[in-house]
Amino acid sequence: MKVLVINAGSSSLKYQLYNMMDESVLASGRVERIGMDSSIVTHESANKPEVRDVREILDHVTAVKRVIDILVHPDFGVITSMSEIDAVGHRVVHGGEAFKHSVIVTQEVKAEIKRLFDLAPLHNPAHMMGINAVETNMPNVPQVVVFDTAFHQTMPETSYLYPIPKVLYRRHKIRRYGFHGTSHAYVSGEAARFLGKPIESLKMVSCHIGNGASCAAIVGGKTLDTSMGMTPLEGLMMGTRSGDIDPAIVPFVINKEELTLSEVNSMLNKHSGMQAISGLSSDMREIDEAMNAGDANAKLAFDMFVYRLRKYIGAYAAAMNGIDVLLFTAGIGENSASVRRAVCEGITFLGLELDDALNTERKKTVREISKPDSRVKVLVVPTNEELLIARDTYKLTNV
Amino acid sequence: MKVLVINAGSSSLKYQLYNMMDESVLASGRVERIGMDSSIVTHESANKPEVRDVREILDHVTAVKRVIDILVHPDFGVITSMSEIDAVGHRVVHGGEAFKHSVIVTQEVKAEIKRLFDLAPLHNPAHMMGINAVETNMPNVPQVVVFDTAFHQTMPETSYLYPIPKVLYRRHKIRRYGFHGTSHAYVSGEAARFLGKPIESLKMVSCHIGNGASCAAIVGGKTLDTSMGMTPLEGLMMGTRSGDIDPAIVPFVINKEELTLSEVNSMLNKHSGMQAISGLSSDMREIDEAMNAGDANAKLAFDMFVYRLRKYIGAYAAAMNGIDVLLFTAGIGENSASVRRAVCEGITFLGLELDDALNTERKKTVREISKPDSRVKVLVVPTNEELLIARDTYKLTNV
Repeated sequence: MKVLVINAGSSSLKYQLYNMMDESVLASGRVERIGMDSSIVTHESANKPEVRDVREILDHVTAVKRVIDILVHPDFGVITSMSEIDAVGHRVVHGGEAFKHSVIVTQEVKAEIKRLFDLAPLHNPAHMMGINAVETNMPNVPQVVVFDTAFHQTMPETSYLYPIPKVLYRRHKIRRYGFHGTSHAYVSGEAARFLGKPIESLKMVSCHIGNGASCAAIVGGKTLDTSMGMTPLEGLMMGTRSGDIDPAIVPFVINKEELTLSEVNSMLNKHSGMQAISGLSSDMREIDEAMNAGDANAKLAFDMFVYRLRKYIGAYAAAMNGIDVLLFTAGIGENSASVRRAVCEGITFLGLELDDALNTERKKTVREISKPDSRVKVLVVPTNEELLIARDTYKLTNV
Repeated sequence: MKVLVINAGSSSLKYQLYNMMDESVLASGRVERIGMDSSIVTHESANKPEVRDVREILDHVTAVKRVIDILVHPDFGVITSMSEIDAVGHRVVHGGEAFKHSVIVTQEVKAEIKRLFDLAPLHNPAHMMGINAVETNMPNVPQVVVFDTAFHQTMPETSYLYPIPKVLYRRHKIRRYGFHGTSHAYVSGEAARFLGKPIESLKMVSCHIGNGASCAAIVGGKTLDTSMGMTPLEGLMMGTRSGDIDPAIVPFVINKEELTLSEVNSMLNKHSGMQAISGLSSDMREIDEAMNAGDANAKLAFDMFVYRLRKYIGAYAAAMNGIDVLLFTAGIGENSASVRRAVCEGITFLGLELDDALNTERKKTVREISKPDSRVKVLVVPTNEELLIARDTYKLTNV
């Protein structure tokens, strides 16, 4: 059984081909700059030469066709025929309230994803192009959609409703959805397995901190609360996103700077966060380096990032009335020992003590970085959203 | 030494006359509906009959004149001549970054308050009318201004900067200021005195929860962080204010509902919060009552209010790496045993245990409501912003 995992953006398409017998990745790659005459395709696999070519790829249908051509290519490919692909799994950012789990793609499912375009105008239309492109190229292969929001659908009203006129929820479905759900689901499961404890017994704060960043309070394996909201703007300070600000700043800035709605969205999503404060980079590695070289703005960006993350960990400990596990994942979470140290140093009152040697070890597996007698276990858990998409796709199509 | 404390709004003026020898209130009252032909004046004092009259009061100058007339009136008054008023203290909402303490009013001070009109368009212009009206009526009496923001000026950059383009701070002074500072200053001082401990040794979370509501993390008597931001909209859920929401909701709603900037401000400040969720009232007493009678929306509003407050307490415990004192003040904080119980029940992990009997006692003094062996002390501290304004006014003018 082989599953192709696809993450379609508006001008890009990333893919992995999984052998579900051993969950190994047979091949992976990406098509970039779709819609241009110089699209770039990169592809790699274990035993065949890499591919990197530039050619005109004007739409997602052509992009998917190109991916299949490479996968079955005698020199670069890893399968002999398209028919070896048993199912395709797609990442879909917004599942709204309709999707609490992954589902097989049907006409109804597609119609519902379309209804959610309003809530995720940058993402869902692109995912739909990916789904349709697969349908065109592989009409008989079942497809599954896995939603970034689905895992968080367990949130109670007290977490997901905003204290604003209720008509806005009824009319426009304005509420907290949360994102990175596939990652939070995967890493919280891995953490429980690693600790050898039933997930039902654990209170966790999961910190998915990469260029986008979100925290989740996970009680008994279910999301109680999460920091991203109706959109991925709310919550933690991120690479280029502000996270939480006084909502009154938005109309104030629109007025003072004479911005359009699209400009203010762009300002808060693309020109804020670490980038704005450091004046240097949205990348924590560069900021960390500059900070160590004495750059005051880089240090401020680092400190603000850490401070705001600590507040969320405390808030979620309070939301759950306690915390057993603090886990770090994604680009920064998995790789920045200095962020993990700075966060943990400031919240020892929770009964949490980091082991400096374990924290600075570089490993690619799940690992504990707290001292043996730390009441709160601190873990680093490499995330793998693609694997979870492949698993869900396998489960739903292999019945 | 007698001090007149004034809180001037755009169409109202509240006042208290203090005898600073024993800090007693000689008289207090308010003028409402200034600018109308049926302004209402109410006035009371310990030993004289109350005043309640309706007459035309078209501006603040006339309002102050009327207050003085009543204060020196042979039948209702408490002083024999205006000259007994040694100084006047004003509440001013926004002191920006210029005012870290209370100051005597000068031309420069007035010019600076005027410069801050942009940041507090509903409040500072009204306060200025109050200051000018006193100047007109009592040209030789020194005036002092006490700012809601001043106490929070100790916040470090990591707390007060927003992760947005820095030009917005430079150009428009967009940052966290925080409000209710006079109250947080007063109650944190009272709490330390009550506990018999130096305030320098304490980590406190001060919850000023009334119709407006804010939390402050106070370390060693200084604000480390506070929940209100550039404006009083950010932070906790309030009577009619939303508090924290995904900032992306603002442009989304402006677009979907075709709102003006002023309409979206009004929506978030006047038609959100407890009012919006309960669909019933912005008043916690009515919500509590309806909840106990089985109203589901009232219960949801109550639960959301409590849940969001708990998260802030946890966040600030994390900001301070610990908490010694949790204190409640203002309308809800002083009077709602059910809110205090619901908040504290959910955060026992902090080492905090409420004493139910002490919590439900009705007293008007500072009191401890945690059990004797509760590691975190929980206090109810009646606030008294007017007294702190009177004290600052006395201190600055009686040198």
